[in-house]
Amino acid sequence: MYELIKRDGLAKRGRLCTVHGVIETPVFMNVGTAAAIKGAASTQDLQEIGTQVELSNTYHLHVRPGDEVIKKLGGLHKFMVWDKPILTDSGGFQVFSLAGLRRIKEEGVYFNSHIDGRKIFMGPEESMRIQSNLGSTIAMAFDECPSSVADRSYMEQSVDRTTRWLQRCKREMERLNSLPDTINRNQLLFGINQGGIYEDIRIRHAKEITELDLDGYAVGGLAVGESHEEMYRILDAVVPYLPAEKPVYLMGVGTPANILEAVDRGVDFFDCVYPSRNGRHGHVYTNQGKLNLFNAKYELDTSPIEKGCQCPVCRIYSRAYIRHLLKAKEMLGMRLCVLHNLYFYNTMMAEIRAAIEAGRYKEYKADKLGRMAGLKE
Amino acid sequence: MYELIKRDGLAKRGRLCTVHGVIETPVFMNVGTAAAIKGAASTQDLQEIGTQVELSNTYHLHVRPGDEVIKKLGGLHKFMVWDKPILTDSGGFQVFSLAGLRRIKEEGVYFNSHIDGRKIFMGPEESMRIQSNLGSTIAMAFDECPSSVADRSYMEQSVDRTTRWLQRCKREMERLNSLPDTINRNQLLFGINQGGIYEDIRIRHAKEITELDLDGYAVGGLAVGESHEEMYRILDAVVPYLPAEKPVYLMGVGTPANILEAVDRGVDFFDCVYPSRNGRHGHVYTNQGKLNLFNAKYELDTSPIEKGCQCPVCRIYSRAYIRHLLKAKEMLGMRLCVLHNLYFYNTMMAEIRAAIEAGRYKEYKADKLGRMAGLKE
Repeated sequence: MYELIKRDGLAKRGRLCTVHGVIETPVFMNVGTAAAIKGAASTQDLQEIGTQVELSNTYHLHVRPGDEVIKKLGGLHKFMVWDKPILTDSGGFQVFSLAGLRRIKEEGVYFNSHIDGRKIFMGPEESMRIQSNLGSTIAMAFDECPSSVADRSYMEQSVDRTTRWLQRCKREMERLNSLPDTINRNQLLFGINQGGIYEDIRIRHAKEITELDLDGYAVGGLAVGESHEEMYRILDAVVPYLPAEKPVYLMGVGTPANILEAVDRGVDFFDCVYPSRNGRHGHVYTNQGKLNLFNAKYELDTSPIEKGCQCPVCRIYSRAYIRHLLKAKEMLGMRLCVLHNLYFYNTMMAEIRAAIEAGRYKEYKADKLGRMAGLKE
Repeated sequence: MYELIKRDGLAKRGRLCTVHGVIETPVFMNVGTAAAIKGAASTQDLQEIGTQVELSNTYHLHVRPGDEVIKKLGGLHKFMVWDKPILTDSGGFQVFSLAGLRRIKEEGVYFNSHIDGRKIFMGPEESMRIQSNLGSTIAMAFDECPSSVADRSYMEQSVDRTTRWLQRCKREMERLNSLPDTINRNQLLFGINQGGIYEDIRIRHAKEITELDLDGYAVGGLAVGESHEEMYRILDAVVPYLPAEKPVYLMGVGTPANILEAVDRGVDFFDCVYPSRNGRHGHVYTNQGKLNLFNAKYELDTSPIEKGCQCPVCRIYSRAYIRHLLKAKEMLGMRLCVLHNLYFYNTMMAEIRAAIEAGRYKEYKADKLGRMAGLKE
């Protein structure tokens, strides 16, 4: 199902075949939390900007419109009219970051909805059932996301529970995939490595979850406040203990530099809200660095966001026009910046794949990092 | 320049040839106040939904980004990347409705910007210069928009001043169109009829402005609080005094029913914020009436907004999905509703043109009004 086509150092050029089509890796998944990319980008737009995988958030869709509703409507693909791969997270991260008061028990987590405060319980089986109702291509295991500054003894207990939860996830997913009315009976399951910034706990946990022979493995609990150097150190330590012949996903990461560094350490799946969130604030990515289009110097600038960029925005609109739209608080300004930024990320991933194939990833990375550092706004 | 192709009763089927292309009338102009349709619709989207004329607001563009800026950028068409006709209003209506404290003098109006409070003066010459800087296809004359409940004596003084201002507009536009560095040296000028709800003042004013032999004539100061019946009465009275061999524009109108009735009285240009504003609130037009997509009954509704509609939204997305987007406050929900609504208006205008050409406008109108009255939400 996952084919490792080429390695260049630790960098992996892979291909994951799914029932919703092929994912060429390294890949950046475009985040559409509530079954839509924020910034009014439609699935039609996604086709134009080279999106391979859309990522939706299980917790958000569970509370609104409800996963049962989406199942009745034929699943998430049909609902949002997107026939390519979709990854859903487990809901765990949102339960730990968004929800109100919560209690963590062996069976799962009791918490209050961030929308209407009602009590919700979510455990491994519930997360799998919700994701099965959504019918995503790839489901993520339900894990605990402990604070990155949790002490050793809490972290050890937590990853042990996450391993037990993962076994329950796998069992439940196998059961759901065997039911006749399941939306996607080929739903894949990725496990998640935790352990905070403790290398030894990370490694022990990686070994344990690898034994479960899942469809892919994620590194979770990073990019939550630790330094970039610390994140790279953890990747250096733990990625070698995850199977290279499976997809390796670094959750919630990150800046273009983070992605370039993580690819070099063997990661090949990514997701992050940066390109869409930055776009909504008028911050746009270029190969010369990030621009703030609110800057007065763009008032009379008739050039596109980036010269030579083939995105649907740069082929048509000027910095001057987009700046005006942003200042006038026209939604169109946000939309254009989001589309450009996602195209930038998606295109960078295509460059990364080509560089690995050509066996020149290190040079590519150094060149890209050097150029992007050229401009700081 | 304007060709009256066919009449069916008072209804006119016309064609206005401009330097930016042909406008087939009756036409509904799509309102893009600050050089963008609210709801993240791009000019690429406008091409898809059959927009013939984009309408931008002079006052808004004068205060931000500034008409001088737009002139330096090559004019409004180049700025927003729209090569079809654009109509700009005079700024007068916004001065009277949006601006802070104002004083009306023979030379023009002194007022405070609604954005930063700074003092601005706008008279006929200033409005023409701003619109010339924008380089729109059609400029509107600078008029006073008195309260519709102003008394007779004020209204008489006001329309007399509006006539004097119109003479100054015409003179200034001729001068601007003769300058070598003018963006659009073929800019057209439409005069505006005022007179509130006093038929005799309206008629006297219509006769006076007709003598100036302008490129088109608008009926202003309606749809500002009077009843629909009163509006139709004024149109019955005044439109026969405007030249049928020129475009007749009813400013700021209106509902589909208003447009159907006004066409029947000889009007062939329209504009209104309803389709975009209603769309942003989840209210969508269909041939069975207006739907409120927030309504719970659409939760599991897999049909498009309107069955058979060929708009870029109905060809793809379901009511259930759009309802979810609206409830989740995803911008995409607003965008999809706005695109559908503008397509609905633009398509209705095409139906109107076909019905007039076929000499069956009365039947078409009765049928359309009957069907749209079927559903009230």
